[in-house]
Amino acid sequence: MALSFNPRLVRGVSRCHAIVTAKMALAASCRDFSAAEKSTVIVNLNDNTGVATIQLNRPPVNSLNLQLLTDIKIALDKLQMKKDCRGMILTSSSPGIFCAGLDFMEMHNPQEGRAREFWRSLQEVWKMLYGSRLATIAAINGHSPAGGCLLSLTCDYRVMAQGKFMIGLNETLLGMVAPFWFQDTMTNTIGHREAEKALQLGLLYSGENALNVGLIDELVPPEKVMQTAQVQMQTWLKIPDLARRLTKEQMRGPTLQKFVQRQNEDVDQIMKFIMDSATQRSLGIYLNTLKHKQLTSV
Amino acid sequence: MALSFNPRLVRGVSRCHAIVTAKMALAASCRDFSAAEKSTVIVNLNDNTGVATIQLNRPPVNSLNLQLLTDIKIALDKLQMKKDCRGMILTSSSPGIFCAGLDFMEMHNPQEGRAREFWRSLQEVWKMLYGSRLATIAAINGHSPAGGCLLSLTCDYRVMAQGKFMIGLNETLLGMVAPFWFQDTMTNTIGHREAEKALQLGLLYSGENALNVGLIDELVPPEKVMQTAQVQMQTWLKIPDLARRLTKEQMRGPTLQKFVQRQNEDVDQIMKFIMDSATQRSLGIYLNTLKHKQLTSV
Amino acid sequence: MALSFNPRLVRGVSRCHAIVTAKMALAASCRDFSAAEKSTVIVNLNDNTGVATIQLNRPPVNSLNLQLLTDIKIALDKLQMKKDCRGMILTSSSPGIFCAGLDFMEMHNPQEGRAREFWRSLQEVWKMLYGSRLATIAAINGHSPAGGCLLSLTCDYRVMAQGKFMIGLNETLLGMVAPFWFQDTMTNTIGHREAEKALQLGLLYSGENALNVGLIDELVPPEKVMQTAQVQMQTWLKIPDLARRLTKEQMRGPTLQKFVQRQNEDVDQIMKFIMDSATQRSLGIYLNTLKHKQLTSV
Repeated sequence: MALSFNPRLVRGVSRCHAIVTAKMALAASCRDFSAAEKSTVIVNLNDNTGVATIQLNRPPVNSLNLQLLTDIKIALDKLQMKKDCRGMILTSSSPGIFCAGLDFMEMHNPQEGRAREFWRSLQEVWKMLYGSRLATIAAINGHSPAGGCLLSLTCDYRVMAQGKFMIGLNETLLGMVAPFWFQDTMTNTIGHREAEKALQLGLLYSGENALNVGLIDELVPPEKVMQTAQVQMQTWLKIPDLARRLTKEQMRGPTLQKFVQRQNEDVDQIMKFIMDSATQRSLGIYLNTLKHKQLTSV
Repeated sequence: MALSFNPRLVRGVSRCHAIVTAKMALAASCRDFSAAEKSTVIVNLNDNTGVATIQLNRPPVNSLNLQLLTDIKIALDKLQMKKDCRGMILTSSSPGIFCAGLDFMEMHNPQEGRAREFWRSLQEVWKMLYGSRLATIAAINGHSPAGGCLLSLTCDYRVMAQGKFMIGLNETLLGMVAPFWFQDTMTNTIGHREAEKALQLGLLYSGENALNVGLIDELVPPEKVMQTAQVQMQTWLKIPDLARRLTKEQMRGPTLQKFVQRQNEDVDQIMKFIMDSATQRSLGIYLNTLKHKQLTSV
Repeated sequence: MALSFNPRLVRGVSRCHAIVTAKMALAASCRDFSAAEKSTVIVNLNDNTGVATIQLNRPPVNSLNLQLLTDIKIALDKLQMKKDCRGMILTSSSPGIFCAGLDFMEMHNPQEGRAREFWRSLQEVWKMLYGSRLATIAAINGHSPAGGCLLSLTCDYRVMAQGKFMIGLNETLLGMVAPFWFQDTMTNTIGHREAEKALQLGLLYSGENALNVGLIDELVPPEKVMQTAQVQMQTWLKIPDLARRLTKEQMRGPTLQKFVQRQNEDVDQIMKFIMDSATQRSLGIYLNTLKHKQLTSV
């Protein structure tokens, strides 16, 4: 498969998406100045309630690079080992953008070993989140395309901010194919027909449309997203943990088992795609376009 | 798995549920006075129409014990052997309560053999109903939690009474996990996402909400439930029996085949759960609470 | 399985359906005058847009006989081999009837070899359309029962004409069972519960109801069907072909793979049904009834 960069298409995408990509451009161009040592997540655990929050904290758009994925994984590991931690709210420290998806810099002229590690980290984070013993709620306080949408779909419940924010698996818009486990997660959430259409067209849904098709569970004013997530969490924590967790395992088990069976095959497939020279050419053009975009406003 | 009795939770459950559980307490306390010889179902077959009704008749709440399950099985067997019987309406002789689910007395300090027989009977009733050659309609004339909901989900069509009545698989509320075949039946009816949420949270739906998510097909005034079911049955009986039956088999076959493959495993799992001392402690506390509840009103 | 002809039932079917069947009767009675050499599809490819249209052109009701199926297959083969062809709109040259489904004349007193070839052609057309590399849109400009509904369900998007037109898999109405791959296509489109009900009852949906359950995607005035399909096609062609195609393959692959595994078994089953003397008796009565129906109006 070749990534086929389509400049007209990218111009055609909504203004909201343009802002996300512009911020990604900024992120890409600033990359050398980021301090690799600082954690890219902010974790808080309320000992009274047992509810943790993980804030994605890789400004400007929380694009998922190896470090951010690793930090999510470590944070989640630690929380899941704490007996008193019962729930986790996933959100962003950058209001307006929940997560812009994968950091394409990880896929541009990569060392093969690093690219492989990057993809395995993404797989691992998905697997951990989708099968987490914790009650998990996504507080989607901004745009949530591609990998950002995927992260939110792993949670048990999704609260999204009203406004111009978009959410969806828009991979095809850039000539890419969402891997089978993205598709399975989407199908489990919105059903086969809607997923088929959404994935083929790379649909980015408005909050209202996302609510209509069941991609999110609640749509509230931006300033109420976190509070709504916390109130909803109380509902989930009323349920005895063990029964809730075993029920979740039973519902999500088949999807997780299928994933584990094909996990290595999936890495091989993506590596073939990334290391392809046509992909690299397209990516180079795309990233260059991002860098030269005008950052007129937020 | 341990059943984790949560008194606060039970207090928190809706008033409607409290009534069901209170009636269950009464049933539990009155158990010794019940006549084991009397059939716990009332069966009528209209020879003109070929439509049978099975009324669950184990007052006060039709909780499913070994006898009731056995009586359902026998009734269904007989009806299915009569060539002229083409449809069956499942309802309750106690308006206000369709069926309260499993009788926990069967799981409290049980002889292992009896408990095993109890669970196998539940499996058998589900399997017979879900794969029945008859056109089946549930006339849900009252509350229908847990096993009551399951019974209704096996039918081809569900008519429910308007009012304060609730329906759902609320097992997690009591720290229990609905077995995989409960989950499959639920997923087939309302889809993966809604089932996942409903089962984790042990959701009891109002009639309106049940209609919205497709858990039931019609919501009518209580006095019209039976009549609506009978009118609906005419629609189903307009279809040539063989074609309808083969179509049903093809749609439900995969779910039934999966069940048959794991049926014994499921018995072993539930026996381990029932025979666990922690489960027994929790059940003892729970049943004791039920017995001491005030029965203030219906 | 025996086809059980039910005259009362057929009388009970809606007037719209009666028109379709009446036209089928005409078709059946006129059969000897049809010119086997003329193609039963009209194909156009717009070289500028890369969008082809295939018009089913076997008046009066486009009933699917071996020739029409073969012509569809050839047309599709040719289009898919043309590199510049990116999308295909499937419609009818007879406004008012998209496609009436299978031509029962192919199943009445057939030579076994011909009947087998007929069924294989139907399988092949379904497989090619469901897995087509093209973006496919059904412009449903009239009634679309049974096989007509199936054809439309293979497309990526469905636009239907407002009015009295009906769509659905109504096989059980005639005592027939929709094969498993009809069922799978239906379930993928409208979900398990709705498909189970629709297939058992042989439901023919009005446009409004079809839109409500997701059986179609848009409902527009008859004169706007083609134009709407073309506008929608532009949306699909904005997506890079390869990414869209691979995404489609991933979504539909499991259904296609299951089909391929059971394809021969399916032929054997249908042949057993067709060659059964009871089926032939019922078919004879049915076709005779059609021939003697009054064709009062459209």
